[in-house]
Amino acid sequence: MKRIESAKNPRVKQWKKLYTKKGREQANAFIIEGPHLVEEAIKNNVSIIEVIVEEEYQVPSAWTIEAAEWYYVPRKVMEGISDTETPQGIAAVCEMINDSEVEVQKGKYLLIDGVQDPGNVGTMIRTADSAGLDGVILGKGTADLYNSKVLRSTQGSVFHLPILKGDLTSYIERFKEINVPVIGTALEGGESFLNNQGLSEFALIVGNEGKGMDKALLEQCDQALYIPIYGKAESLNVAVAAGILLYGIQNQR
Amino acid sequence: MKRIESAKNPRVKQWKKLYTKKGREQANAFIIEGPHLVEEAIKNNVSIIEVIVEEEYQVPSAWTIEAAEWYYVPRKVMEGISDTETPQGIAAVCEMINDSEVEVQKGKYLLIDGVQDPGNVGTMIRTADSAGLDGVILGKGTADLYNSKVLRSTQGSVFHLPILKGDLTSYIERFKEINVPVIGTALEGGESFLNNQGLSEFALIVGNEGKGMDKALLEQCDQALYIPIYGKAESLNVAVAAGILLYGIQNQR
Repeated sequence: MKRIESAKNPRVKQWKKLYTKKGREQANAFIIEGPHLVEEAIKNNVSIIEVIVEEEYQVPSAWTIEAAEWYYVPRKVMEGISDTETPQGIAAVCEMINDSEVEVQKGKYLLIDGVQDPGNVGTMIRTADSAGLDGVILGKGTADLYNSKVLRSTQGSVFHLPILKGDLTSYIERFKEINVPVIGTALEGGESFLNNQGLSEFALIVGNEGKGMDKALLEQCDQALYIPIYGKAESLNVAVAAGILLYGIQNQR
Repeated sequence: MKRIESAKNPRVKQWKKLYTKKGREQANAFIIEGPHLVEEAIKNNVSIIEVIVEEEYQVPSAWTIEAAEWYYVPRKVMEGISDTETPQGIAAVCEMINDSEVEVQKGKYLLIDGVQDPGNVGTMIRTADSAGLDGVILGKGTADLYNSKVLRSTQGSVFHLPILKGDLTSYIERFKEINVPVIGTALEGGESFLNNQGLSEFALIVGNEGKGMDKALLEQCDQALYIPIYGKAESLNVAVAAGILLYGIQNQR
């Protein structure tokens, strides 16, 4: 157990670097904040390297965190390293999760193409978890999984199912090889999702908030679905659309 | 047409006050930012009092804004009054919309109880518009409609359907009088929404992000629905849940 008093301590500077993608890649680590995410990391056997605790914070006695180094810091240091306005007393540095060995199988997947808003990406991972999916695949131009707002918005779902990254074109080919229907989304064209329900396997692709999904990817799809708009809105928020589709098209258990 | 050079101009100070609820109520006005929202306000006959334009900004010639005062400002003044990091060249001060005379009728409504996050509230208004609802009712503890993040998240839907405010208890009584089914939402108990589809009228209530909807309101409901969670997530984001339910329970057209 170590105590750090100064925000200028080199360790504090290293923690701050974990809020940038480059810093995370260099350290092969990411930082999570708040008791809920830390508890989810423990429950899901994420490798925790360091735990950072505010002096006044009471760590739940049920938590067993092995092999981690513990640091006690005053509130002002915690505020300095936190990404939120009101830090919740605890943060943890975790080893990057390596899902690159995970092979996609027959099942239900969400593919995210170029969604930039971290809140939308995290919320979609949470929704994919809720809907019982087998995995999420983050394509080019999508917010980084370990961005602190993505992690926060997943509410822990980041630790519940495989999250892959990579070129969606190759993933689509792989899904086609194993006969999983690849379903694109479009504002116009295609079919209403209301006529496409009860699927037990699919790879659903959602796209960028403004432009929708990449046209070349859309052409690779077996079919495209849209959500009917009954009012005057031009479109739905992408995370809401993903939720409607994931619950709408899959077989009901 | 007037030109304002200094961020210390009293008019600039008044605009900034419109970012607080108190300031909006005192002025009976609210401020919107960016060409998309301004265009939606024009299309939907919102009363625009003042238009604030950055010097370099080209106002689309198709826009006719009657009766408004025009102000030209340098970029630094626009940045000072804007709520976003990269202002989009135009903002407008609008008169508050008065929907208090609107009476609820037989139809489809979304009632929002205690949802604090402005992004969630705005996104739900956008979804309610997309799903063809007849109105949205904001209850106690819900983010203010004219909060700039709520407005931005509605993407203009704020101008497309009546948005009412008030005590949800009284609204529920009114819906019961006119035989519109009042449907609460709960994480546990109640019935799966998958068994409750095809409704042509309803008043659906969603609740606070953490605590769910108020227990007393839930007891007033004709029934409670839940969305099944197939994975390890504890719950869905409230705006995603509202989208799944609004598209899931209504009759398909």
